[in-house]
Amino acid sequence: MESRNILRFLAISLSVSLVLFFTWVHLPYAPQPNTTTDLLYCSTNSPWCTSKNRFQPINKPSTADNILEKPPNPKHHNHESDTPHHPLDPLTISEINRVRTILKSHALFRSSSPFAFHSVVLEEPDKTLVLQWKKGDSLLPRKAAVVARVAGKSHLLTVDITTGEVAVQETGSRSGYPTMTIEDMTSSTWAPLSNADFNRTIIERGVDLQDLACLPISLGWFGESEENRRLIKIRGSGIPIPKAANTDYRYSAQKINPEMMFVNPISIEQPKGPSFTVEDEHLVKWANWEFHLKPDPRAGVIVSRAKVRDPDSGEMRNVMYKGFTSELFVPYMDPTDAWYFKTYMDAGEYGFGLQAMPLDPLNDCPRNAYYMDGVFAAGDGTPYVRSHMVCVFERYAGDIGWRHSESPITGMEIREVRPKVTLVVRMAASVANYDYIVDWEFQTDGLIRLVVF
Amino acid sequence: MESRNILRFLAISLSVSLVLFFTWVHLPYAPQPNTTTDLLYCSTNSPWCTSKNRFQPINKPSTADNILEKPPNPKHHNHESDTPHHPLDPLTISEINRVRTILKSHALFRSSSPFAFHSVVLEEPDKTLVLQWKKGDSLLPRKAAVVARVAGKSHLLTVDITTGEVAVQETGSRSGYPTMTIEDMTSSTWAPLSNADFNRTIIERGVDLQDLACLPISLGWFGESEENRRLIKIRGSGIPIPKAANTDYRYSAQKINPEMMFVNPISIEQPKGPSFTVEDEHLVKWANWEFHLKPDPRAGVIVSRAKVRDPDSGEMRNVMYKGFTSELFVPYMDPTDAWYFKTYMDAGEYGFGLQAMPLDPLNDCPRNAYYMDGVFAAGDGTPYVRSHMVCVFERYAGDIGWRHSESPITGMEIREVRPKVTLVVRMAASVANYDYIVDWEFQTDGLIRLVVF
Repeated sequence: MESRNILRFLAISLSVSLVLFFTWVHLPYAPQPNTTTDLLYCSTNSPWCTSKNRFQPINKPSTADNILEKPPNPKHHNHESDTPHHPLDPLTISEINRVRTILKSHALFRSSSPFAFHSVVLEEPDKTLVLQWKKGDSLLPRKAAVVARVAGKSHLLTVDITTGEVAVQETGSRSGYPTMTIEDMTSSTWAPLSNADFNRTIIERGVDLQDLACLPISLGWFGESEENRRLIKIRGSGIPIPKAANTDYRYSAQKINPEMMFVNPISIEQPKGPSFTVEDEHLVKWANWEFHLKPDPRAGVIVSRAKVRDPDSGEMRNVMYKGFTSELFVPYMDPTDAWYFKTYMDAGEYGFGLQAMPLDPLNDCPRNAYYMDGVFAAGDGTPYVRSHMVCVFERYAGDIGWRHSESPITGMEIREVRPKVTLVVRMAASVANYDYIVDWEFQTDGLIRLVVF
Repeated sequence: MESRNILRFLAISLSVSLVLFFTWVHLPYAPQPNTTTDLLYCSTNSPWCTSKNRFQPINKPSTADNILEKPPNPKHHNHESDTPHHPLDPLTISEINRVRTILKSHALFRSSSPFAFHSVVLEEPDKTLVLQWKKGDSLLPRKAAVVARVAGKSHLLTVDITTGEVAVQETGSRSGYPTMTIEDMTSSTWAPLSNADFNRTIIERGVDLQDLACLPISLGWFGESEENRRLIKIRGSGIPIPKAANTDYRYSAQKINPEMMFVNPISIEQPKGPSFTVEDEHLVKWANWEFHLKPDPRAGVIVSRAKVRDPDSGEMRNVMYKGFTSELFVPYMDPTDAWYFKTYMDAGEYGFGLQAMPLDPLNDCPRNAYYMDGVFAAGDGTPYVRSHMVCVFERYAGDIGWRHSESPITGMEIREVRPKVTLVVRMAASVANYDYIVDWEFQTDGLIRLVVF
């Protein structure tokens, strides 16, 4: 058990480090490599390919493989010109820039103390106002909810984007429960290296300081002295170091036994295209469903104003005003020294949206999927794009939605079977070494199924 | 509650009646309407159709819609010439006929007492013999396990099909736990009508005796006086009778609100065809799986000798010797008079295989599915065919089997995602008004998932 725990610790440590660097690398606003091009190619030898790395050998894509007449995301575009259309639409690039400009001239941030924006998201209008709003109405006042830290204090602010007014809602040691910024993480990982005693323990273990990477691991609550403080665990001691040999998990690195069989290409196909539309970037309409969908740095995705048509009246019925992943709590419950404190809150501490990687077309989502980008704010308030963060697609698995067989004696030869087709909203957050796939599945019978796997 | 219970009672009663008649109608060996033809046509206007009755309007099929180059079941054939190839293969038509001939000349059945065969299935050879057997070896001795009732006694017999030897394994009031035969059901439903007091209660309710159908409803155990007896509950009294108006559940009978939206055609497509084969009618091979599959009158399907290839050694590993639905127990747990006794054992009392209706291609199972027929014995020992009782298909739902995203900082742009493709064995038993869909799902990682829905 002991050596397994250590392996787990180091595996997680390495992964957290990678996440840290990844987040860091992607902080400034730079358009992601345009993966739209990938969508037009199929890296196997057939238009029906499902997988690029598992079921068929990896071939270089050629233009001859491109048989998609309409790329799945014809509207993929630069987000610089985005404008909000719906009261719940997320902040645009220009709105995030405006918030940053407003706050920089605010008294709180004019001092010489360093500051950080831990969250810059839409302050949603009151539910009653949103419920009254209809397409064609003028947009409700746009405001931002900001969690900022200055000189050790946390502030929960509301910024009116039009008027420039800033309202301080709350100030305290943990107001707004700020997530970790990349600066929090990097500064705490370098801090131990300024301690000679710490460095000596590393050298005594035969490790070159140049090969050392400390990691910011969130931790639970273990006593009143930790109350209301923002703490990060750095590293245990006396832990043996495993080798990297034979740890490459990639398919291309595997020695595949020649006896192993693979499956033929398989794909969900829709010759007339998908049945859903995405209006104004965020309003999804499918079958008799309608809902507002937006990426969120903390929750991953937020589904709002979900409505379904009543088959009797033909009217839309409200099903859910707002739904999102409130938290993903991971208590390891292992009493050993290196593990006891591990009680991750993966959404609230690291950010489900912040850790969501671009989805891989045909592998993460089937053909005809629609991909949605996230627009988030970095620690200094600069907007950046998390591309292909969410996908929307119709799911058909050969399953049965409803069936009944009737007896031939009635003279009615009834075998009434209705196949099950659903609409899925998917994101995948790679939090360190864990990949969480979150599916919102909408059924034609009015049920919403939420699955994390 | 009371009126709801009554409605449920009558709905179930009607359905049990239909099942009874259905089973009755299908008892003699008569080839089912050849549904292979259906497979070649697509009743919608596109080769991609999924559903014939839900998502698109119902059109008459035309030959122009036939685009399948290879029909899914090219080997669909008359079962008269079936011969066993594997020690676990089910009894063939000629074997069932031979069993019947052997038993008719046996002392037990030569008397003038009426007799009934409640079950005639393969007596599987000892596990050790089956494990030693290899393809190419001569077949192990073929035997039948028979549950027969004569003059109120039940007998569990083994019949050697080659030698004609009959061994009586057990005799008693409930030996072999005989399922109900159609004769059990019909005789008990007519019995009350010979009772004048009973008939008077019907007439007093304003019901014409011609409109009356009694139903054979299995029941639980409620006291020692019922111990070891074979009992069927007929009908409660004082129950109001609902009308049939607006109870037609068929899609074609619905008044669809013009506001309701439908989805475009969607299908699982495999341009190179499915990746599985079915050897000698019952041996399924897919990816790195191999297993023996047979329909069974009581269990529905039996999966045997399931093996999966070990990716390290390349050798086949035994996963499961024999798996089947042992029972589907439905205790209603409603204390009211018409409901308290309802503790159905749908597999053991009515027979999951006996109640399995033919599967509806494209609706019950997706394209490229393989359909397997069941060959069973009627109460008098006559063999009959339950066509398209089981289907086998590859399932792809756009789901992810495995994924991990790696940080670009490593220089390795890894988003390693492997789509999930599985093999499904499906049957659907329509036990009265309940349709049970039973899926055996084989995953490439060696897991078998069994789902009833």
